Amino acid sequence: MADAVRFGDFAVGQRFRSASLIVTADEIKAFARQFDPQPFHLDDAAAEAGPFKGLAASGWHTAALTMRLLVEGGMPIAGGIVGAGIDELRWHRPVRPGDTLYVESEVVEVIPSANRPGQGRVRVASRTCLADGTLVQSLIATLVVRG
Amino acid sequence: MADAVRFGDFAVGQRFRSASLIVTADEIKAFARQFDPQPFHLDDAAAEAGPFKGLAASGWHTAALTMRLLVEGGMPIAGGIVGAGIDELRWHRPVRPGDTLYVESEVVEVIPSANRPGQGRVRVASRTCLADGTLVQSLIATLVVRG
Repeated sequence: MADAVRFGDFAVGQRFRSASLIVTADEIKAFARQFDPQPFHLDDAAAEAGPFKGLAASGWHTAALTMRLLVEGGMPIAGGIVGAGIDELRWHRPVRPGDTLYVESEVVEVIPSANRPGQGRVRVASRTCLADGTLVQSLIATLVVRG
Repeated sequence: MADAVRFGDFAVGQRFRSASLIVTADEIKAFARQFDPQPFHLDDAAAEAGPFKGLAASGWHTAALTMRLLVEGGMPIAGGIVGAGIDELRWHRPVRPGDTLYVESEVVEVIPSANRPGQGRVRVASRTCLADGTLVQSLIATLVVRG
């Protein structure tokens, strides 16, 4: 894992890249059973006839896997990754069983706290991609970064 | 569950309310182990010293539970809930073990498809609240609605 970055060391344009993981059909269905129990995330046959023309991960599963990749070294922030909010979360194409995902992130804004020197917020654009670079999800996160 | 709503029956200002669920400490830790393995979501003692001053659910867990409440009757759309993207996702306060959550949603925009009559996109503002109405999360979802 990369060295953790403190607020004062963030700068616009910095880039980070995560490790990668493989999404399985069992994981897609297990997430869906708990959080998004719709036929096209749960059952192969129903998914063929559904809007994604085959089994696809819940968008919230892709978002949660993105967070895991960021926490496990993809966004090394001292004190951890604490989000205040997310803008422009977009799902560009379905995530399928067997897909490999990684996340590349770029710092787009650094906002010092008005009353806490050395702390503030950092806005980061994160792109979740397949192994060949195809974009599957994008978002902009506003992170609270302590000193 | 309410009757499913077709695209032609959506109108700005319509409101929907989900059932409710209770979040447990075990669920908070299980989600965090899979998707957001940071000490303040995993371990009671570490969480006391962390940014939330006690165990708190990952924001992505709150988002996933919100989806479950929407799928299980909170947003009854014919053909299912298919999201193109999310704007202005905000976490307003931590979700704690034992909290009861429900979701209230309001249609804020109805956008007919340019080339598919009777289909289109619906923008919905969803507020995830505690039993007493305290806001914990808000978002605006853009949903793809078939005929």
